[in-house]
Amino acid sequence: MDPQNLATIRNNIKTIPDYPKPGIQFRDVTSLIEHGEAFSLAISLLTEPFKNAGITKVVGTEARGFIFGAPVALALGVGFVPVRKPNKLPRETIDETYELEYGMDTLELHVDAIEPGDKVLLVDDLLATGGTIEATAKLVRRMGGEVVGASFVISLPDIGGEQRLVEHGIECHYLCQFEGD
Amino acid sequence: MDPQNLATIRNNIKTIPDYPKPGIQFRDVTSLIEHGEAFSLAISLLTEPFKNAGITKVVGTEARGFIFGAPVALALGVGFVPVRKPNKLPRETIDETYELEYGMDTLELHVDAIEPGDKVLLVDDLLATGGTIEATAKLVRRMGGEVVGASFVISLPDIGGEQRLVEHGIECHYLCQFEGD
Repeated sequence: MDPQNLATIRNNIKTIPDYPKPGIQFRDVTSLIEHGEAFSLAISLLTEPFKNAGITKVVGTEARGFIFGAPVALALGVGFVPVRKPNKLPRETIDETYELEYGMDTLELHVDAIEPGDKVLLVDDLLATGGTIEATAKLVRRMGGEVVGASFVISLPDIGGEQRLVEHGIECHYLCQFEGD
Repeated sequence: MDPQNLATIRNNIKTIPDYPKPGIQFRDVTSLIEHGEAFSLAISLLTEPFKNAGITKVVGTEARGFIFGAPVALALGVGFVPVRKPNKLPRETIDETYELEYGMDTLELHVDAIEPGDKVLLVDDLLATGGTIEATAKLVRRMGGEVVGASFVISLPDIGGEQRLVEHGIECHYLCQFEGD
């Protein structure tokens, strides 16, 4: 990808020191999406590697995954499938529970949203531990969908999420990396 | 708008009886967005009336407002500004608390996301009581933004949200209506 495009993405992401707690450098994508040109460029770059991959559905996880996933689905001309926190989806669902740093979280998927043979792209803003995307991939695979890859705006390589996802057979694509400091 | 296009939107919205509680007919937009063509048509129709209105920002409210608001912002070539539940936005915010059927809810906006003179379009999936959009409009106006209008996929006319918003100077546009039954 064009280094100048990638610099545009990176330069539009603000870093908030000590948020949400001391020692964490929070990478804020809202500063990116608030600029129309940078947001549009991010969607093109998230989509580009998967344009000819025969994707049939894009899946995004609540809530920031919706902001990038829905436009990527439209750019690929396919449907968008939301994965949500418990009791938010009105039809029959399956769920996956996964570990957070402190405690557990659960995600749900409509059972009729993914069909056997669907070729699925997962989209999210940030790859940190990879826990959310691993749980989302499990939901997709339980319904018979094939996870073609995952596309992120930001990767935090120090945390090891990419290695974890690759071990689970999920190819990762991202627009920029931020090291810890 | 073309009646056939509007029928396509309406026919792709599933009704879930007695959800989330007995007597409520839940209108489910996930069945619309899961179909690529219908989703793309919905975004065009939400955007159309505001194409030449000089919109400078689109604001969408967590979480379903992100699914429609982000693509409308991209279609208009402007930035997308998320309004979120408390403690989700990392930079300095202002907030508005408003009444729900039972209890209260609070919404937050980044103080630097809207500038004086911004011409703002609000986007959400559903117009019911209008409480969420009224609170969102207050946040935008407090930062000096002008609310040009609000664009919804669905309006529930029996609940009176459109009248309430018009009384607060917010022009409403929607793609389909569902009467109670």
